[in-house]
Amino acid sequence: MIIDCHGHYTTAPPALEAWRTRQIDSLAEPWTGPRRADLRISDDELCETIEPNQLRLMDERGIDLTIFSPRASFMAHHIGGFETSSEWAAICNELCHRVSRLYPDRFAPAAMLPQSPGVEPATCVPELSRCVEEYGAVALNLNPDPSGGHWTAPPLTDRSWYPIYEKMVEYDVPAMVHVSTSVNPAFHTTGAHYLNADTTAFMQLLQGDLFRDFPTLRLIIPHGGGAVPYHWGRFRGLAMALGKPELEEHLLNNVFFDTCVYHQPGSDLLFDVIPARNILFASEMIGAVRSVDPCTGHHFDDTRRYAEAAKLSEEDWADIREHNARAVYPRLDALLKGQGR
Amino acid sequence: MIIDCHGHYTTAPPALEAWRTRQIDSLAEPWTGPRRADLRISDDELCETIEPNQLRLMDERGIDLTIFSPRASFMAHHIGGFETSSEWAAICNELCHRVSRLYPDRFAPAAMLPQSPGVEPATCVPELSRCVEEYGAVALNLNPDPSGGHWTAPPLTDRSWYPIYEKMVEYDVPAMVHVSTSVNPAFHTTGAHYLNADTTAFMQLLQGDLFRDFPTLRLIIPHGGGAVPYHWGRFRGLAMALGKPELEEHLLNNVFFDTCVYHQPGSDLLFDVIPARNILFASEMIGAVRSVDPCTGHHFDDTRRYAEAAKLSEEDWADIREHNARAVYPRLDALLKGQGR
Repeated sequence: MIIDCHGHYTTAPPALEAWRTRQIDSLAEPWTGPRRADLRISDDELCETIEPNQLRLMDERGIDLTIFSPRASFMAHHIGGFETSSEWAAICNELCHRVSRLYPDRFAPAAMLPQSPGVEPATCVPELSRCVEEYGAVALNLNPDPSGGHWTAPPLTDRSWYPIYEKMVEYDVPAMVHVSTSVNPAFHTTGAHYLNADTTAFMQLLQGDLFRDFPTLRLIIPHGGGAVPYHWGRFRGLAMALGKPELEEHLLNNVFFDTCVYHQPGSDLLFDVIPARNILFASEMIGAVRSVDPCTGHHFDDTRRYAEAAKLSEEDWADIREHNARAVYPRLDALLKGQGR
Repeated sequence: MIIDCHGHYTTAPPALEAWRTRQIDSLAEPWTGPRRADLRISDDELCETIEPNQLRLMDERGIDLTIFSPRASFMAHHIGGFETSSEWAAICNELCHRVSRLYPDRFAPAAMLPQSPGVEPATCVPELSRCVEEYGAVALNLNPDPSGGHWTAPPLTDRSWYPIYEKMVEYDVPAMVHVSTSVNPAFHTTGAHYLNADTTAFMQLLQGDLFRDFPTLRLIIPHGGGAVPYHWGRFRGLAMALGKPELEEHLLNNVFFDTCVYHQPGSDLLFDVIPARNILFASEMIGAVRSVDPCTGHHFDDTRRYAEAAKLSEEDWADIREHNARAVYPRLDALLKGQGR
C-alpha cells in the first residue's frame, strides 16, 4: 500500500476562491462580507474537481491514499486577523473533510489552522479540536511564519506554540510544518519560501530542546526537508558546536521528512542520508511543479518513480510508503484498520 | 593548483572587534566613536592570526590560494547607517588587502561593500572601485539582505542594484552573493539564513532576466547553492512554469556554485547535478563548521577530501579546483600569470 502524506486541495471549485475574494474585499467592513453559508458547493462539484485530477493521478501512479489538506498557498494567514483566518480555515477544512467522506478509502483529512500574525497560537486549538473530533483529521499543517515571508513569529520552540503541541500530544496527531504564500518580494513562494521554511524550521528545532518537553510530538518537514539532507554534514557539525546530542538522538525520534524532491539525484540523496524510518512517501501532486520533465517524459512530481528507481531495500521502501505513515499518523492507522486494511 | 574561492578573515586580531564594539556603542553620538586611525594592527599581528590558522590548514590540505574577504557574519550591514558601514567596510577591506600583500602567492582579496538597509546600492560603488583599483580585489561579496534577516531589500534583479553590476562588468569582477548575520530570531545565521539566502538569490535570478541586461555578469552562490542542486528538478520545473529557458541557457552562463557542502553525499550530489564548469572549489574554512566529523576523523570543512573521493574525471576536477576560478575571476588569473603561475 502507498500512502501519500502530502496532498493539498489545489483544484477546489472556483466558488471557493470567489468566496475568499469577497472576504478579502470586505476586510475593512467585515459585516458586509460573505458568510460561511454563502458558499455552496455540491458533492458533484467536489467529485468533478477530484476525479479527473488527484484521483486520476493517484490511480495512474498506484497511490492508495492521500493525506489531504487545504491548499497551502491559499492559507494566506497574513490576510486580515484571527476572525478572517478562522472563517477561512473553517470553510477550507470542511471541504477537505467532505472530500474524505466522499472517498473514505482514498483521502484522509488534515487541518489547516486559523493562524494570524501576532495572535497567540493557542487561539487555534478550538479549530484543531473540531477538525480532529468532528472531521476525523489525522494531522494538521502548522505555519511557522503566518506573516507570509516576513518571519515575525518566534521560533517553533517558543512557549507560545506549546498549547498547540499539548493538544497534538493529547490527540496523538502530527503536524506538517508548512508555510503559505509569500508576500515578501524577496521570496518566490514555492521556489524559495517553502524550501527556506523547511530549512529554518529544522534549524529552530536543532537549536532548541522542544522534544525534551514533548517526547511524543511528531513534526513532518516537507519538500524533502528543504536544504537539510543536502547539508546534513553542516547540521551535524552545527549540532556539535551548539552542544546538542547527535541529530539521531536530538531530533530523529520526532522529525520526519517527506519525499517531495522532484528529480532522481535529489531523491537518491534523501534516501542515502536520512534513515528510512524518518522518511514518508509524498508527492504534493498538482502542486508547485505540475509539468512533465522533458528529460524523463514523466511528471516532475511523480515521486514514486524516484523511490522505486532508488536502491532501497524492499523493507525500507515498505516503511517509507506505508509503515512509517501508520506510525507517525496513528489516527490514520486506526482509520485504515477500521477499513480492514 | 587548488584555488579556494571562499575564505573569510574569521580570525582577525581582537583589536578589530574592539574597534567595532566602540563604533556600535557610539552609534547615537558618532562623533564620540573611534576613527579609522585608532585601529592599529601590526603586520606581525596579522601573521600571528593567519599562519597558525588559514595558512596552516591550507598547507595541510594542499590549497594554493584563497580568495579572502572580510568575515561575512561581521559585515552586519543592518547596524547603523551608510556611514557606519562605510567606515567598517574600509577597515575590514584594508585588513584583507594587507594579508594578501603579506602572502601574495597565498591570498587574493575580495571586498565587502558598505551596504545599509534602505540605502541605494549605488552608494557602494566608490568602495568597490577603491578595492579593485588600490587593493587589487578580484571579487566582491554582495549581500542580498542588508537588513540581517528581515529581507527588506528588493530582489537582486531590481534596477537599484544595477550600478553595482555596471561597475562589476566594467572591472570584470564577479560577486559572491553572501548574507551576513541574522538578527531575526527565526533564522540561525549559518544554519538557516546563509542557506536560505543562497536558495532565495538563485530563485530571484530564475524569476528575472538579469543576464539579458548583463550577459557577462558573474555571480557565485556559496554553500553549494543552498537547497538548489538538491531540488534541481523543482527549479527546472519552475523555470518551465515561468516560461523561462532551460536553466543551462537561462542562468548557467553567469551563475556558479561553490563546494562548501560538508559531507560526501551532498558533495556527490553537487558534482552529479551541476555541470563541472559551474562549480568552484571552496571550503569556507574556519567558518560555520569548524569541528572534526567523528564519523570520518576529518574536518567537516575539508572539502578537498569530498571532491577527491567523488567520481570526477581528472579534467572536471582540474576545472573545479583551478580553471573555472581563473575564468570567473579574470583579475585573479592575471595576478597568477603575473606571478608566473
